[in-house]
Amino acid sequence: MRTTVDAVIHEIRDALGDAGVLTGPALAERTTSDWSEADAALPGALVLPRTPAEVAAALRILHTHHCAVVVQGGLTGLAGGANPRPGEVALSLTRLDRIEALDAIGGTAVVQAGVTLERLQSAAEETGWFFPLDLGARGSCQLGGNAATNAGGNRVLRFGMMRNLVLGLEVALPDGTLLTMLDRVIKNNAGFDLKHLFIGTEGTLGVVTRLSLQLVPRPLHQPTALCAVPDFASALALLRDSKSRLPGLTAFELMWSDFFEASCRAQRKASPFGQAHPLYVLIEGFAASEEVGNASIEHLLEHAFDRGLVTDAVVAQSGSQAGQLWAYREGVSELLSVCKPLAAFDVSVATTRMDELVTQLRACLTQAFPSQQHLFFGHLGDGNLHLISGNFAGHDDVVRAEEMVYAIVGEFQGSISAEHGIGTVKRPFLHHSRTPEELRLMQQLKGWLDPRNILNPGRVLPELDRA
Amino acid sequence: MRTTVDAVIHEIRDALGDAGVLTGPALAERTTSDWSEADAALPGALVLPRTPAEVAAALRILHTHHCAVVVQGGLTGLAGGANPRPGEVALSLTRLDRIEALDAIGGTAVVQAGVTLERLQSAAEETGWFFPLDLGARGSCQLGGNAATNAGGNRVLRFGMMRNLVLGLEVALPDGTLLTMLDRVIKNNAGFDLKHLFIGTEGTLGVVTRLSLQLVPRPLHQPTALCAVPDFASALALLRDSKSRLPGLTAFELMWSDFFEASCRAQRKASPFGQAHPLYVLIEGFAASEEVGNASIEHLLEHAFDRGLVTDAVVAQSGSQAGQLWAYREGVSELLSVCKPLAAFDVSVATTRMDELVTQLRACLTQAFPSQQHLFFGHLGDGNLHLISGNFAGHDDVVRAEEMVYAIVGEFQGSISAEHGIGTVKRPFLHHSRTPEELRLMQQLKGWLDPRNILNPGRVLPELDRA
Repeated sequence: MRTTVDAVIHEIRDALGDAGVLTGPALAERTTSDWSEADAALPGALVLPRTPAEVAAALRILHTHHCAVVVQGGLTGLAGGANPRPGEVALSLTRLDRIEALDAIGGTAVVQAGVTLERLQSAAEETGWFFPLDLGARGSCQLGGNAATNAGGNRVLRFGMMRNLVLGLEVALPDGTLLTMLDRVIKNNAGFDLKHLFIGTEGTLGVVTRLSLQLVPRPLHQPTALCAVPDFASALALLRDSKSRLPGLTAFELMWSDFFEASCRAQRKASPFGQAHPLYVLIEGFAASEEVGNASIEHLLEHAFDRGLVTDAVVAQSGSQAGQLWAYREGVSELLSVCKPLAAFDVSVATTRMDELVTQLRACLTQAFPSQQHLFFGHLGDGNLHLISGNFAGHDDVVRAEEMVYAIVGEFQGSISAEHGIGTVKRPFLHHSRTPEELRLMQQLKGWLDPRNILNPGRVLPELDRA
Repeated sequence: MRTTVDAVIHEIRDALGDAGVLTGPALAERTTSDWSEADAALPGALVLPRTPAEVAAALRILHTHHCAVVVQGGLTGLAGGANPRPGEVALSLTRLDRIEALDAIGGTAVVQAGVTLERLQSAAEETGWFFPLDLGARGSCQLGGNAATNAGGNRVLRFGMMRNLVLGLEVALPDGTLLTMLDRVIKNNAGFDLKHLFIGTEGTLGVVTRLSLQLVPRPLHQPTALCAVPDFASALALLRDSKSRLPGLTAFELMWSDFFEASCRAQRKASPFGQAHPLYVLIEGFAASEEVGNASIEHLLEHAFDRGLVTDAVVAQSGSQAGQLWAYREGVSELLSVCKPLAAFDVSVATTRMDELVTQLRACLTQAFPSQQHLFFGHLGDGNLHLISGNFAGHDDVVRAEEMVYAIVGEFQGSISAEHGIGTVKRPFLHHSRTPEELRLMQQLKGWLDPRNILNPGRVLPELDRA
């Protein structure tokens, strides 16, 4: 039984006030779709609660009326999960934007779900702390969405995914029950750790309303180097060495030569090296001081040169030089704009098999799409490989490339989504990374926790429709 | 409907062979209870599968017959969770003892659940790697149990709990479905991350049969220092400084003076300091070399002396000196043997409130039990506080002390179990750390995943009996 969206909107407006529900022209002015290019309908209404209790109240009404709802944070997702489908109401966490507590002695923060990543990063830095999650969308993405999608980004190697930074959560269940679990402790084995049900499940099991987060002390110095590496085995040996010799290793970014060269071209930036090399690695660490940081990285490189793991290297002598070195890796945004239509992949595989995977992907893609570029780079330390393929002749070729890549990743027992999630876009490919037994248990969990299938229906998992 | 245990044993023997089921005298010779002093019955039989498929087959039979089963690993738990209750069959993972793979290039291992922690530690070290989980029971505890209980221990500050080291799991569900999720990648956002349902739920939702684990490079040097600290605020400031200045900080152990002095007495060991101090902190890090490690720790201490955070310190000049310093902290085992009957607590609280909690606990315990010792120490970096109270006049006083401590921890929004788990022993106190809504969802999950309530019934959660 689904009642009309009008009746639902009326009840939610009664509960949240006029400012809590947008429809008509006021709604049409708002952005209600994400950064992916997936299909998005205009939602029947945009619900804008101001408090966790209002989120719960809205869900209770939606649940009573069996009305489907799509949850929206900063709308920076790349998998289409936040895009409304026809007939759905959208629920945005944007007005839950308070940093409720920032413990400058213990290094923890309690924030509402709609606070942007960048706001927390800045607030932490003002008190001498540091929130280590970082990704390109930092200015718009919201912490609730970061938890719901288990965001990754630039410093996973040292600090883990968002999951590792969440001490506690508050979550509104599909029936409007508010589950307050705002632990501020790292260790808590008092019964089941329920927050893990909601982290990374892309809003299909509950809506994150507040978070308790771990901060770390602000880094004193970040030694940074760009290295030219002769082959993949050397890159793996250098990774292991870097973990030993730079205990504060935060990034180990691998770039294949064609990516590196395309990035230079797209940015009209010269390579810092006199000649081309097969692979490039960007290393970044946290250190106690500039002196210690530079000594450690020089010591690491000296050892690597002696063993032939590195054939050339540039060590940044200042923060701005470090930024220059990062630009080779960050050049991906310029690349994206010149490769459309393109397919962008975010897969992962056991680090030792990454080179073999790249070789196979490159061979298959080059055979099928000989006149396109296929550019490989990734977070080697995390086993996370990114690949940009383009420009394609049209959307059909993009789909063909996707089918080819995900099937090969599945054969390598890799993940078809290392950090971007599944949403709607990668739903058809999920079976390449998960067994039928896993998919069945995921569907059961969804059915148990959201028996009316109102919360983000049709995302992540194969369709369930018992609403 | 429960059939007799005899019929079940007969069927399991048919499936697993004679060596797969012990009863009678052969059973009586085996240890079937854990390190806690909780009640333990003799199980109806001890099932000893050799493979994950045999675990699944045994569970399928138990499930068909609605027969309760208790899962046993190394039997080193402190919460009574592995102790059989009357009428239960015990299922031990001991014969699943193969290290199936150790990737010496990428630094991952795939092991069966019955491999002991120490065996993996040794196997990793032989290939230049290091498995960072470490606890006193290392020689007996099994990795499957470490995952089921989300073990903590000595290096959580740097490497996290067992949860953070598990890349993938294989789990047999209560109905005998085998869920193989042996990912070897750090990043995998392809749908729900189901392993978190089984980590830390103490075998109530499934039986871990195999694990895929993350290794880290073997430390090159471990700088270690024991510091005398004037007050708690200084200890907190020193913790923050240590995190900044020793990026490889692995331990930050706080000891209140009465614990430190009792530990010295119990071991007949002199303090390395000329006078008594209010607090002692043991600091350990990972460093690239002895030179870098010593320079970093001396730099850290110099800065701490200047700011008055530390009033005296000893830096270990060798591995054996580091062991000597660790002995002050490890003296807890000697203390436990001279304090019986005792109550040993493992709680956690936001680090900034730890001193306030200690003050209140000390005041209440001293008032109620003036002639007992109440000794405080803990992993300050993790917010994890240990407390040993004893010798009590009898068991009733132990229970009274437990009730008092857990109620106060609850008022501080702390956890009544930071790392030891709930089992049967702490089940009556779980409500101090979890809300009714959380307890209800935990019970629902148990009911959904184990509708016949055959797996570790009566552990962790308030009783559910629909078998």
